[in-house]
Amino acid sequence: MENKISIEMKPIGYIETPYMGNAPFQPVEDDEQEFCIVLEPEYAQGLEKLSTFKYIYVLFYLDRIESNDKLLVSPSWSDKKDIGVFATRSPNRPNPIGLSIVSIKKIENNIIFISGIDVFDDTPVLDIKPYIQDLDNKPDANYGWVNQGSDASHLALHIKGIPHKH
Amino acid sequence: MENKISIEMKPIGYIETPYMGNAPFQPVEDDEQEFCIVLEPEYAQGLEKLSTFKYIYVLFYLDRIESNDKLLVSPSWSDKKDIGVFATRSPNRPNPIGLSIVSIKKIENNIIFISGIDVFDDTPVLDIKPYIQDLDNKPDANYGWVNQGSDASHLALHIKGIPHKH
Repeated sequence: MENKISIEMKPIGYIETPYMGNAPFQPVEDDEQEFCIVLEPEYAQGLEKLSTFKYIYVLFYLDRIESNDKLLVSPSWSDKKDIGVFATRSPNRPNPIGLSIVSIKKIENNIIFISGIDVFDDTPVLDIKPYIQDLDNKPDANYGWVNQGSDASHLALHIKGIPHKH
Repeated sequence: MENKISIEMKPIGYIETPYMGNAPFQPVEDDEQEFCIVLEPEYAQGLEKLSTFKYIYVLFYLDRIESNDKLLVSPSWSDKKDIGVFATRSPNRPNPIGLSIVSIKKIENNIIFISGIDVFDDTPVLDIKPYIQDLDNKPDANYGWVNQGSDASHLALHIKGIPHKH
């Protein structure tokens, strides 16, 4: 059972965003610009009833990452401290799967119009799942290492992905 | 850009659970039994600081699924109605990636002891990410189609993954 198996995934669509060279670290609300998930038409039927949800998880392939062999990273939230990659949302991870929660604005055929998402234009989508109240909502979740040494207002800028200077 | 690309993933470890032939539909709290994620030792360094978090996302490969070509499914929560697969947490999906939120009990070297998780024993792990307060917590999330036609106490059994008769 401990043999290395290889797992194959395929894109089910692509995320269209205004970000070509730079993307924010986390989703930023931006009503001026359009963000959408364009599913391959063959998967459109799988969206039935999705519009009954307010939020969805988007799982995507971090296809613009050049290296994923580092296990310690220094994300912008860490004040340059080394953090284990699994304790971060860094895109540099052994399996380059990204996870973001976005809200649904509307769905038209195979296109889901969404709130802002922190990915480059044309990022391949792997999966979409509903974010379900009580199941996914953890009111007693904490901030882990993220709030160690940061003041609350500064931390909020990081969590909301708002660019700022230190 | 619309060419089909193939994406390769590899297990970073395995989830040990008491579930051999049947697993609950969602994580069930069960302090009598042990659930843990055994990371391949080569990835253990990536767990640095993970224990500062209360909850984590576990992304896993649904390796016991036999078919994933249906886009409409009838999960146990749907009262036999057809629901688009992306509006469900059904394991039968185009890319068989499962997502669960669990709490961390303790971490010892390459082993994370966790609360109950709804997967078969020896399920391959793809990724671990911290669940971060404010970023992942959506107090205004809804239940989508899940609460249409269900009473609240019955719905709670489904969401908590508690087996019951209809």
